Amino acid sequence: MAEQIARHLGQRIVTGRLAPGERVQEMKVAGELDVSRGSVREALLILERRHLVEIFPRRGAMVSQLTPGLVNSLYDIYIELLCMLGRKLMERWSASDLTDIMGQVQELQTLASASQKTGDEATERVIDAGFAVMRHAYGLVENPFLEETLENFRPAISRTYYVALKNFQGEVLETERFFRDVKNAVDQGQTGGLVDAIRRFGEHQRQQVLKTLEQAESA
Amino acid sequence: MAEQIARHLGQRIVTGRLAPGERVQEMKVAGELDVSRGSVREALLILERRHLVEIFPRRGAMVSQLTPGLVNSLYDIYIELLCMLGRKLMERWSASDLTDIMGQVQELQTLASASQKTGDEATERVIDAGFAVMRHAYGLVENPFLEETLENFRPAISRTYYVALKNFQGEVLETERFFRDVKNAVDQGQTGGLVDAIRRFGEHQRQQVLKTLEQAESA
Repeated sequence: MAEQIARHLGQRIVTGRLAPGERVQEMKVAGELDVSRGSVREALLILERRHLVEIFPRRGAMVSQLTPGLVNSLYDIYIELLCMLGRKLMERWSASDLTDIMGQVQELQTLASASQKTGDEATERVIDAGFAVMRHAYGLVENPFLEETLENFRPAISRTYYVALKNFQGEVLETERFFRDVKNAVDQGQTGGLVDAIRRFGEHQRQQVLKTLEQAESA
Repeated sequence: MAEQIARHLGQRIVTGRLAPGERVQEMKVAGELDVSRGSVREALLILERRHLVEIFPRRGAMVSQLTPGLVNSLYDIYIELLCMLGRKLMERWSASDLTDIMGQVQELQTLASASQKTGDEATERVIDAGFAVMRHAYGLVENPFLEETLENFRPAISRTYYVALKNFQGEVLETERFFRDVKNAVDQGQTGGLVDAIRRFGEHQRQQVLKTLEQAESA
């Protein structure tokens, strides 16, 4: 039950319907969803773990802020952990073992190319497919702590994508390039090349998000 | 309230009084501590975030396992994040800005040296002082996500130290060497040297913990 409430509220936060800094009142949410206050409190703890709300003693919960400083902190650690995932993948598996996951990357490249024509929904599909590749990688790397930590950051990262979705639509070429770089690095067994590709693409997305925040601020 | 219950149970898990794999029953804990079941459920969510329990749908909570595989996964990500903390510290601050924190490191070196003679309690003091240096570093690095993620791993790392405490007692020379290496690297502004020192010491502690687990298994 708490997990369901957390997903419902989480979706509203990721898509911006609950705005950064907005208070989330236990009693109000319990009334609206016709659930117990206890379940809402548990849901808020789950959302805090996913970096979407902050809970303050005696003042209750608030949707996490989304400032340039916080976006930078978030991308700093997220990129670092993605690079770790890439390195561990290469440590444990040779290119020939990674045929399945490279097939997924290839499909993504095609999907990214197709999304150029069809806009928003397709962009979201590319983002989801990217997360699916990550989940595939978790299964190979077998580090439950790395998986859990990355998954806990995913909603907050999704929120930044959502903010910058319009700026992401022109990004198909960049996305295709990323998937091509990943595929080449893995095929050639080059850990350094894979880490560079992840870092370059992560930094690029960070800049898109920061640019959108700046535009919103000056608007 | 939930936080207090989480600390109480957490301490019992870290020190091994609640054993890996043991079930934690909501109702029983609520009765023993004379608190509501709701508060215990919240406490268990907090402990799950701190990697000390796992919660299974319909089966309830269980103290996290402590196997060689999990210890390896834990140290893999923990060492990676500590190295990131070290790198960020060097990016943002020059050696002369880090005088305070280096004073702390110096004290730690002295403390480590003294603990050679006095056993258990002093060893725990050195461990605590090490965590205090980390907290000082958080304040300088200013990445709340990195801080939160490292702090959430701290109880699980403490549990492994606790397991290996006896093996750690002969480790004063290694600990002193680590603090000396950290100090030298920072004084000379060498990020690579700092990262190497963190990695070497982390790997060393991982081996001590794994050795203890092996000994316990074959006993």
